[in-house]
Amino acid sequence: MILVLEPGLTQDQMDALKARLRDLGQEPRTERTGGVECLVVAGEGDAAQRASLKALEGVREVLSSLDGYWLASRRCRAEDTAVRAGRWSVGGPAFVLAAGPCAVENREQMEACAAAVKAAGGSILRGGSFKPRTSPYAFQGLGKEGLALHREAADRHGLAMMSEVLDREDLPLVAEFADILQVGSRNMQNFPLLKALGRQGKPVLLKRGLAATREEFLLAAEYVLKEGNPNVILCERGIRSFDPSLRNSLDLASVVLLKSMTHLPILVDPSHATGERSLVRPLARAAAAVGADGVLVEIHPAPREALSDGPQALLPEELRGLAEDLAAIGAVAGKTFGSPA
Amino acid sequence: MILVLEPGLTQDQMDALKARLRDLGQEPRTERTGGVECLVVAGEGDAAQRASLKALEGVREVLSSLDGYWLASRRCRAEDTAVRAGRWSVGGPAFVLAAGPCAVENREQMEACAAAVKAAGGSILRGGSFKPRTSPYAFQGLGKEGLALHREAADRHGLAMMSEVLDREDLPLVAEFADILQVGSRNMQNFPLLKALGRQGKPVLLKRGLAATREEFLLAAEYVLKEGNPNVILCERGIRSFDPSLRNSLDLASVVLLKSMTHLPILVDPSHATGERSLVRPLARAAAAVGADGVLVEIHPAPREALSDGPQALLPEELRGLAEDLAAIGAVAGKTFGSPA
Amino acid sequence: MILVLEPGLTQDQMDALKARLRDLGQEPRTERTGGVECLVVAGEGDAAQRASLKALEGVREVLSSLDGYWLASRRCRAEDTAVRAGRWSVGGPAFVLAAGPCAVENREQMEACAAAVKAAGGSILRGGSFKPRTSPYAFQGLGKEGLALHREAADRHGLAMMSEVLDREDLPLVAEFADILQVGSRNMQNFPLLKALGRQGKPVLLKRGLAATREEFLLAAEYVLKEGNPNVILCERGIRSFDPSLRNSLDLASVVLLKSMTHLPILVDPSHATGERSLVRPLARAAAAVGADGVLVEIHPAPREALSDGPQALLPEELRGLAEDLAAIGAVAGKTFGSPA
Amino acid sequence: MILVLEPGLTQDQMDALKARLRDLGQEPRTERTGGVECLVVAGEGDAAQRASLKALEGVREVLSSLDGYWLASRRCRAEDTAVRAGRWSVGGPAFVLAAGPCAVENREQMEACAAAVKAAGGSILRGGSFKPRTSPYAFQGLGKEGLALHREAADRHGLAMMSEVLDREDLPLVAEFADILQVGSRNMQNFPLLKALGRQGKPVLLKRGLAATREEFLLAAEYVLKEGNPNVILCERGIRSFDPSLRNSLDLASVVLLKSMTHLPILVDPSHATGERSLVRPLARAAAAVGADGVLVEIHPAPREALSDGPQALLPEELRGLAEDLAAIGAVAGKTFGSPA
Repeated sequence: MILVLEPGLTQDQMDALKARLRDLGQEPRTERTGGVECLVVAGEGDAAQRASLKALEGVREVLSSLDGYWLASRRCRAEDTAVRAGRWSVGGPAFVLAAGPCAVENREQMEACAAAVKAAGGSILRGGSFKPRTSPYAFQGLGKEGLALHREAADRHGLAMMSEVLDREDLPLVAEFADILQVGSRNMQNFPLLKALGRQGKPVLLKRGLAATREEFLLAAEYVLKEGNPNVILCERGIRSFDPSLRNSLDLASVVLLKSMTHLPILVDPSHATGERSLVRPLARAAAAVGADGVLVEIHPAPREALSDGPQALLPEELRGLAEDLAAIGAVAGKTFGSPA
Repeated sequence: MILVLEPGLTQDQMDALKARLRDLGQEPRTERTGGVECLVVAGEGDAAQRASLKALEGVREVLSSLDGYWLASRRCRAEDTAVRAGRWSVGGPAFVLAAGPCAVENREQMEACAAAVKAAGGSILRGGSFKPRTSPYAFQGLGKEGLALHREAADRHGLAMMSEVLDREDLPLVAEFADILQVGSRNMQNFPLLKALGRQGKPVLLKRGLAATREEFLLAAEYVLKEGNPNVILCERGIRSFDPSLRNSLDLASVVLLKSMTHLPILVDPSHATGERSLVRPLARAAAAVGADGVLVEIHPAPREALSDGPQALLPEELRGLAEDLAAIGAVAGKTFGSPA
Repeated sequence: MILVLEPGLTQDQMDALKARLRDLGQEPRTERTGGVECLVVAGEGDAAQRASLKALEGVREVLSSLDGYWLASRRCRAEDTAVRAGRWSVGGPAFVLAAGPCAVENREQMEACAAAVKAAGGSILRGGSFKPRTSPYAFQGLGKEGLALHREAADRHGLAMMSEVLDREDLPLVAEFADILQVGSRNMQNFPLLKALGRQGKPVLLKRGLAATREEFLLAAEYVLKEGNPNVILCERGIRSFDPSLRNSLDLASVVLLKSMTHLPILVDPSHATGERSLVRPLARAAAAVGADGVLVEIHPAPREALSDGPQALLPEELRGLAEDLAAIGAVAGKTFGSPA
Repeated sequence: MILVLEPGLTQDQMDALKARLRDLGQEPRTERTGGVECLVVAGEGDAAQRASLKALEGVREVLSSLDGYWLASRRCRAEDTAVRAGRWSVGGPAFVLAAGPCAVENREQMEACAAAVKAAGGSILRGGSFKPRTSPYAFQGLGKEGLALHREAADRHGLAMMSEVLDREDLPLVAEFADILQVGSRNMQNFPLLKALGRQGKPVLLKRGLAATREEFLLAAEYVLKEGNPNVILCERGIRSFDPSLRNSLDLASVVLLKSMTHLPILVDPSHATGERSLVRPLARAAAAVGADGVLVEIHPAPREALSDGPQALLPEELRGLAEDLAAIGAVAGKTFGSPA
């Protein structure tokens, strides 16, 4: 069990609490989690034991060490968290439009995308240079060269740059270029990567695993938060379902439910969720209607020639129409649209 | 295989076609499906065989008898179908608000609900008098008495009445009272019931099964259409997922995908999809944003005392705020709100 | 809540209990469930309230009316139930082999199948004359004519006859012929049908729904038991999963788990679970290894010409090899094989 | 597209083939995959294009670069692959019993487990020193100290040592100790790790992801094989399902289906699949009955005090009874039991 302590305990109060725990047969170990002081004791206890520990002076909360999360929870922090990325903010009053190609391919492609994102009032240029591909024979990304092209295009248009990092060995390189470090759904439980991301300060966009429960999703975020990095953005991008006629099932109810469980911002990725261009605009609208903090959309100047995921990419010029819908619906759901924070 | 014929074939053309099929070793059987003339031949054939049959003069389409649907498809009918219920229309330019309690309980409850539906600009009063309950010990509905109370409340406020029918034995009784006959998700593949509903003319609201693919859903609709009743309304109400923290997962992408597959109108039921009051309004907004033809919402004047599904019911007075959201978002998605057709 | 009473309460004890409940503000209603006396009181209570009701003299168990089952549970009946069908027994010491075609087609087919079942040591001849087909254009079964052919073949070889019933209107007809009445997975929650099956005495084989939890499965069985028919046989036949490369996922862990939850016998259907002939024999072996009471296997003398589900049917002559495997593995799992009870 | 070439093409044949491809407008790139020569050309083509490429002289197979696998397939290698680990063999005529604790905790625990594995005729001692835990607050493993204790116990009893590796940074350390390197289900698509494992020669046990299709599973194996390491062992360990009453659903049909798709050996892990001690023995029996090459079972001398997954661990002394079942059932499924290869 984890005993989360009240902030500002004096040494005397702490000693008294430890003594009390020793009387109960527990040998507490001190731990800091995301800047919060905790005591860890053995075992998981039952409801009665937890209640009695919570009643001790100086104890704010008692968590299971198997499935309890604290830093990610609304109990820890009641107000919404806004994560800063450059001059932009994710989770604040403005609805965020992040767009770009699935994979960075060349300078012209990135320029076309960046210009379109900017023109549509977007704030983040997405694009992968390290691509997690189901097949080893598929295009695996341009690596460092792609990161440089991506950075250049983002800077030219004053956009924040978001790029995926596949494991902790790649982290220093990606972090050298990107403003936001993306963890893909296949890596949601790559715990060494999450810990490494927690030990640096750049914002992390964490995508929900294809078969991850909401609780597992928040525990993955807790891995990052626990190491000291509070800048975590969640992203819903579809879960596995039994119907093969669409790639995934976009779980929009999760956005509302997660908003009640956590203070972290939540984006929605309708492109990966469906894999179908024609579904992207209606589902982006639905994401705004349901209360998401923004959307992540794939665009490509020539989808049929894209090296990855062409069938789901919008044309850059389609972004503006989408943005108009998002602005209108955001107004109903309580979000502004399009101006930097 | 089913050979759907071009409309208006002369007897000579038909004879020529049959002769041609016999030359190919097939003995065709004539069948009418939903008013459309067809020829049925044995076997499923391969792609080449189907193409050669489709090339025959007078043949409009060749379907598999295992998974092909015709009457429900956009190929059969390109324009949207609007289903009339009383003076209301589902699937036309107006977004439909259907609301009411899960179970009909008494006159006061139905009056409170009907008044609220009317005040919010709704058109349909829902409510169950035959309840399919997971447990045999749960309240099973008021039966005929409930139907009468329901009818009375609907009439008093000029609303259409929608009520569930559990099997074909109950059908004549429910059809005596209700304007729209609801088939619940557990009954989506109750084929004798679907056939019986196809042999009468009242509109049928068909809910998607918890683990039904979109193709199976449309084949279930085809059962009704094939018997001659064109008045089928589809309803998305959540599918089973692996995360027990919500009852179901509302598959809103389905609404868009189904709209491309079928001309039938589609409503969304955010109450049963989630089982949680706090999620109903945001998900109803999302349903409007994604392009649904309307929503089905549960309300109850005293949710804590409801005999069924209280935790998901809105208060009647919450309906108006919801309706305002739906009107604003419907405008973006191309629907008007609130006036009778 | 349902208060299951201790057997043999005197009238005085009953009156005292009712008086005590009225003191607690409850107005109890008497109900018999499957021959067991119960009191029903309003509300679901919390853990403390249930515990205090259970502590009352004469109360054996307190159930939720939403998700509690009693008659199907091991708490109600600790020892295994064996269901008699003719001179055969399902759930006793002998492992049961039930086989036959998916659909009854003609006399020769039924004779070939029945002879093979008999020769392999099987006891039940399965076959459908009312077929629940996903498509309205697929073969729907021979109806009464099929039932007669089926009965004839079963009688000729001294086998029990099992046939599916699709709704309560068909029940009298099917019950006139069959020894065991099958409820298919799509009908697992056809509650009017389950109630009607509970009001007659023939054994019922209840297949698990494609997306039914184990609890929902047992609550469906409880519908039959509650009406007074104790002869329920469960059947695992695969659940929906996310991988389209097989029709369903056969949930063999369920057999073990259900055996701990219920006293009812459990068969496994590896044919419908997979839809693939080559998987039937290994999965039937696995069913025996895991502790099932028997298997349900599809056979057809000419699978390529079968009117339904040919690709999953074994040849009749393959049944004997399968039976040998089952006998050898049954010995490990504690079952005999092949002789009538 | 990937063109797999016939073995032993002369330089002239190769030149002719490349010239032919250039005539078709393709610029081929040479690549070796797991020792097999290939040509990679742009685009995925349609069925006709693929067929025409396959017809070219010297081309053995044409694969999609999105979802085609070759080295893992039966088309590439028809006979079963047996993977050597020390003096043991996985995938040969003998059924393999691998057992041990979830997490390595101390010397006594490892000694008790190793002795039990040896006594039961097992060949592999499993145990984790780097633990992927859902919660950051749960025990994360002893690291290097655990590896040393594990090695010592395995050596003392002549067993092969299997241990999990979480990412490529940990690989050199784990590979220094272990005979078999385990990739957990959460890491099935950690592609940098798979590539690194492919560039060394120790056997890799690859667990199927919780929501991975069989095709994705084999594509993950292909990542290892492509880099040149042919020693891949697959492991089924349960997939996510909708029923929360068991942790996962053990997909035993997959074992049979995968055996037809791939030549790689397949183990089954009934402990992680269910999370329940009482289900382990019956499901291990079922794994043997269905044709798996072995099982992976968790044991712990004091399950209630285990630092991880205690509820699913058998006692070491229960292993012998399990082994007896496996020997008896293995005989039916065509496997010997218990002697070193």
